[in-house]
Amino acid sequence: MSTGKPTNAVRQILDMNAFDLSTAKPEGAAARRLSNLGALSVLFYQDPIVMASASGAWMVAADGKRYLDFYNNVPSVGHCHPRIVEAVSKQMAQLNTNMRYIVPIVDTYIEALKAKLPSSLANIVFTCSGSEANDLALRIAFSATGGTGIIVTETAYHGNTATVTHASPSALKCLNLPSHVVTIPAPSRALYGDDIPGGVLGSIKTAIAELNKRGHKPACFIVDSIFSSDGIFADPAGFLKPVVAEVHAAGALVIADEVQPGFARTGDSFWGFERHGIVPDIVTSGKPMGNGFPMAFMAAKPSYLETFSASMGYFNTFGGNPVAAAAGLAVLDVIKDENLQENALNIGAMLRTGLGEIAKEDERIAEVRGAGLFIGLDLCARGNDNRADPLLTAKIINNMRERGVLIGAAGKYGATLKLRPPLCLTNAEASLFLDQFRSALAAV
Amino acid sequence: MSTGKPTNAVRQILDMNAFDLSTAKPEGAAARRLSNLGALSVLFYQDPIVMASASGAWMVAADGKRYLDFYNNVPSVGHCHPRIVEAVSKQMAQLNTNMRYIVPIVDTYIEALKAKLPSSLANIVFTCSGSEANDLALRIAFSATGGTGIIVTETAYHGNTATVTHASPSALKCLNLPSHVVTIPAPSRALYGDDIPGGVLGSIKTAIAELNKRGHKPACFIVDSIFSSDGIFADPAGFLKPVVAEVHAAGALVIADEVQPGFARTGDSFWGFERHGIVPDIVTSGKPMGNGFPMAFMAAKPSYLETFSASMGYFNTFGGNPVAAAAGLAVLDVIKDENLQENALNIGAMLRTGLGEIAKEDERIAEVRGAGLFIGLDLCARGNDNRADPLLTAKIINNMRERGVLIGAAGKYGATLKLRPPLCLTNAEASLFLDQFRSALAAV
Repeated sequence: MSTGKPTNAVRQILDMNAFDLSTAKPEGAAARRLSNLGALSVLFYQDPIVMASASGAWMVAADGKRYLDFYNNVPSVGHCHPRIVEAVSKQMAQLNTNMRYIVPIVDTYIEALKAKLPSSLANIVFTCSGSEANDLALRIAFSATGGTGIIVTETAYHGNTATVTHASPSALKCLNLPSHVVTIPAPSRALYGDDIPGGVLGSIKTAIAELNKRGHKPACFIVDSIFSSDGIFADPAGFLKPVVAEVHAAGALVIADEVQPGFARTGDSFWGFERHGIVPDIVTSGKPMGNGFPMAFMAAKPSYLETFSASMGYFNTFGGNPVAAAAGLAVLDVIKDENLQENALNIGAMLRTGLGEIAKEDERIAEVRGAGLFIGLDLCARGNDNRADPLLTAKIINNMRERGVLIGAAGKYGATLKLRPPLCLTNAEASLFLDQFRSALAAV
Repeated sequence: MSTGKPTNAVRQILDMNAFDLSTAKPEGAAARRLSNLGALSVLFYQDPIVMASASGAWMVAADGKRYLDFYNNVPSVGHCHPRIVEAVSKQMAQLNTNMRYIVPIVDTYIEALKAKLPSSLANIVFTCSGSEANDLALRIAFSATGGTGIIVTETAYHGNTATVTHASPSALKCLNLPSHVVTIPAPSRALYGDDIPGGVLGSIKTAIAELNKRGHKPACFIVDSIFSSDGIFADPAGFLKPVVAEVHAAGALVIADEVQPGFARTGDSFWGFERHGIVPDIVTSGKPMGNGFPMAFMAAKPSYLETFSASMGYFNTFGGNPVAAAAGLAVLDVIKDENLQENALNIGAMLRTGLGEIAKEDERIAEVRGAGLFIGLDLCARGNDNRADPLLTAKIINNMRERGVLIGAAGKYGATLKLRPPLCLTNAEASLFLDQFRSALAAV
């Protein structure tokens, strides 16, 4: 996909399927919501959906309409999964307290999580959100390296705290990035051709040089290894390996933000970074780990925590409570018992094959990418030299909504469809999606 | 209480009843926890408690020992309250999604919350933790005022993100406060004598002048109106009123951090700021509002959110999910149906009266303060001119633990007992506490 006029990345991404405050004439439930939330309201669609219930891959609106959920990554093992509900209900009735006391289920969960992680990342800190985890990870990178410089991808989103927002280009509207944050482009074929590994490595070298030139010793490269908000870039697996070596050579750390790819979504591995055969210095994750229970974690080498704790205390009241541990354990059990990693691999491959076939028939599909159940699909204008087409993308998203399918957009130009169904997606649901997508393309 | 040699505030507070990594020889469950968490472990007591269950004001250890909880403010309406458990279980089984869709229970909750707040604070933002709420509140104060200066109390704690930690003197160990943060002393009789209102007002004037001198236009005064980590200072109610006028005259905002005093704890009002008859510009809260479900909020004037949203987006994935709303609604219902605000007022008064009587018999109790079920009690050395005695405080805390009562410490010198039982505390439980406290004083 070639680069059309680069408009503001954020507005593109956020507005693709967003309720636009400036043009909307809200009524009923939307008007009520707006009067309650005001300017930071974040509703989807110009005619927002009033939701009533959800189960598996399906959400049901108050008007009875059913939606196949190809968007939400929080209910990762399926909406309202009964085993997660049961685990939370049971633990909440028994004990819900903080980590200042020892509750064995918490340690059981930590150990289950550590068993999934590289052995060097032997210490866990629990937080309530991926934002809190990344906020802490950045500070730990600062204290461990003595650096202040951060490298991120150009449309990255790593969270909502002040510190993390400044390292999240896609969250900033009018503000420029601060001088200690330097970006690299998304690892796309459009930019790098067939040499994505060489291209990304070159970009990292340039970014490190730029930070040093600005007087900011590099502290870290924080990366979502499925490049979710950049437009979903998965291949070739392994292209991050030389990048890690380069970042380490510059004295900086690699932080793998596994909020998007972690917990089996990419199918061929449990973590996104594993696909690339790398061992990060810090790993964070949040959303999918509790299937909706608010929880997140950071794993790091013990020595980093020792250095950090010399200068300040850290305590997270809700982080690592036994109810979160019960939810997290149930999620790990369900992923294993229901073979969800294998399912993500198989159904993801089937979806990409199906989308590839549709692409052959429709020149507006520039590329289909992804791993497991995380797929990016670039849309471009007909006969228009692969120029990104955010308007077409918006039309498809809204047409799919009419057809009862929830999808979103990503990427610098907001012209990449982001397909991210729950890991329990069935073959029949995947086929239904393909049918509806084919019809939507024909209709717009 | 006069001021003994001012040692490092943080270490005092955090270590009073903390597991000390540097001297501990952990075994069993504590060793397991330490190997999992490392340097950021935060266990209570040198011999940490393994907890198994909890109900009402009681926690039960794995060895069967029962503890009367006079410490934890998260299970504010009582540990494992069945109505909160039921509300969470039911909603989790039905729908748990984010605020991009409309779910009516969320708006019902927002409106119930708004009904408790000043009408000027008409917009709500939900977050997962008080830290996230304060992180956002500080940024909103910056954007609304164009200032960067923050005024906090000298032992304040407002949360754990990078931005909030720098405005939380009690979380910093070796680091000095950054230049844009200026502190005022705790509003104590020891410092200001009988003119606490005049003293605090003078300190605020000095802090504003200091910020201006440093080139930081004042943006906000962020205050926990029960001054929890400063040592609990409640009276005279109203002393914050002239402070608010002074802060406004300097062009800055008042942020009321209601994580500690909010949700009926102070008995005579629902919010801590209400006791002082003030209307803050921004209100935040977290811990008590979900009785253990991770949730928090910020309420602000709509115009502030409009200004803020022009430069950056804000979205909080877990914030304001319908399960949090169900928990929050159940908490509000329980507070009302069980008359918990009235109970906090009555049982709190009974406790302070009882503690006052004990103080008459024991010169080591320098002062008993507080409002509702939040009481601070200063301990000093015998015959030692009211000199703060953190060692005696530690002994009392540990002796009370042996007697099956959980309490903590606060204040600049870590010599203030912090008594903060759940709002459902009964008369009999309060009497039991007084008996045990009298015995503990006799024993140490």
